[in-house]
Formats: sequence, C-alpha cells, structure tokens
Amino acid sequence: MRMTAFEDVSLRALMLLCANDTGFPLATRTIADGIGTPYNHVSKAVLKLRELGFVEATRGRAGGVQVSEAGRRASVGDVLRALDTREDLADCETPNGDCPLRHQCTLRGALRRAREAFYQALDSVTVSSLPHEGQMGPVLVQIGVRPPA
Amino acid sequence: MRMTAFEDVSLRALMLLCANDTGFPLATRTIADGIGTPYNHVSKAVLKLRELGFVEATRGRAGGVQVSEAGRRASVGDVLRALDTREDLADCETPNGDCPLRHQCTLRGALRRAREAFYQALDSVTVSSLPHEGQMGPVLVQIGVRPPA
Repeated sequence: MRMTAFEDVSLRALMLLCANDTGFPLATRTIADGIGTPYNHVSKAVLKLRELGFVEATRGRAGGVQVSEAGRRASVGDVLRALDTREDLADCETPNGDCPLRHQCTLRGALRRAREAFYQALDSVTVSSLPHEGQMGPVLVQIGVRPPA
Repeated sequence: MRMTAFEDVSLRALMLLCANDTGFPLATRTIADGIGTPYNHVSKAVLKLRELGFVEATRGRAGGVQVSEAGRRASVGDVLRALDTREDLADCETPNGDCPLRHQCTLRGALRRAREAFYQALDSVTVSSLPHEGQMGPVLVQIGVRPPA
C-alpha cells in the first residue's frame, strides 16, 4: 500500500505553498526546487491542484501559484480523495487483461471500505497544519522565498 | 493511494489457494493461469507467501503449493501488513535524493496512522472468506483443478 508519486508530489507542493507567508505567488520552478522534485512532475501536480481549486495561479512577470482559501482549509483526506480517481485499489481490470476472479469479488468492496478508513484518518489533519516552521524556514530561505536570517 | 502490484498478486494467489478444495497442491503455473498473471510475478509472490508462512510448498512430481493453517486463518490486514515493509507511504527518501521537507515532517506520522486505519478495516476480513463459490467454481474448472460439472 502506498501513495502514487503524483499524490506525493501534489501534497508536498501544497505543503510548501501553505508555508509561503510572503504574500507573493511562487513560480513552479521555485516549488520544484523547494520540494526537490523534477519541474515536469511539479508542473502537472500544480495544474491538477488548480483544477481542483486548492491553488490559484496568476499570470505575468510577478505571476505564479498561491494556495487558495479552499486549499488552506483542506484536509489531507480531502486532497487525497480528490486526487484519487481510480475506482479500484487492486488491478482488477488492466490493459493486459482482467482478473479472472473479479466477478462478485468481495476483495474490491473490502478494499474500498479500507481506503475510506484511510482517508477518514486524514480528515482531521489540514495540509496547512503540516509544515513546521523549523522545517520550512530553511527551505524557504534556500529557494530564495525568504531573505536569510 | 493504491496497492502495489506485488501485494495485489500475492492476495489473489492466496485467494485462489484458499478456494482450492481438492486437497492437492497447485503448481505455480496453475495459480498463474487462475489469476491471469504472468508466471514470474506469481512465482515471486508465492515465494514470499511461503517465507511468511501463509502457504506451504511440497516438492516432486505431485508437488506444488497449498494454503497453510496460518494462511487460512489470516485476515487481509494480516497479509498486507506482512507484505508491506516500507517505512513510509510517501517518497520521503529516494535514490534520486531525499525530500527537503522530510525533517520533523508531520505528514509521515499522519500517513502512518492512516495506513494502520486501512489495515484495521481489513483485520475482520479473512482471505479465505473472500472467494465466492460462484466466482471461483468456473475458474477452478477452467484451470483443470476441478472436473467440469
């Protein structure tokens, strides 16, 4: 059981945006540097976060990405639920052929209920509560968002 | 959030072995046909299930794999917990570099608690209770484990 790389990058990008207390939007490149992830991956994650309303983007020279009000209030459970569009946790149906056991399989239902328990456990944790100042401060300085102390 | 392919194959192999009511062990090739998964993947899963004590293997011409007493009693939660050896659900540390946010990151702890909630939701479901006769009967006939009706 694990998060997908896309979920992982999206959550970390949102964490960084929540920690950005400068009032200015961040360039996608800056977010990528901040979370140590290739630009292309971060760019796709930001696009999806914007589509879901968790971040807002502004154009132009001083443009970039900022967390939205909804993003600031969102729980980790909210974000992961919104990102997860797969019906099944298991590979019941794949391009290479479907699992012969899939009909009336009670595993699918059990896994869906367990996934909901996973999300519920994360419903009380907002993304904006995740970043510690001690953890984010040095990162924000390093990527040039905050001046060195 | 999803199961790994290895967890998926292991669970389905164990389901099939639980449904095998012939009293005879199954060849790995037969299990692979039964769950529609390449032999190599099933072979690795069976090896791991054996290591964990969920299945037993016998050698020789009539040899093969059977579910053990522990495997018959095991819950889906037991099996997934045993298969999951990763400390983190997220890619906090990767061969390409560690996440700059990983120190004191509260996301890791929140995800670990949520993973435990996921497993707990599957602790009441035994693997041997998963296969329906209506689902498994035709598969067992198709792979030659049971004679056609």
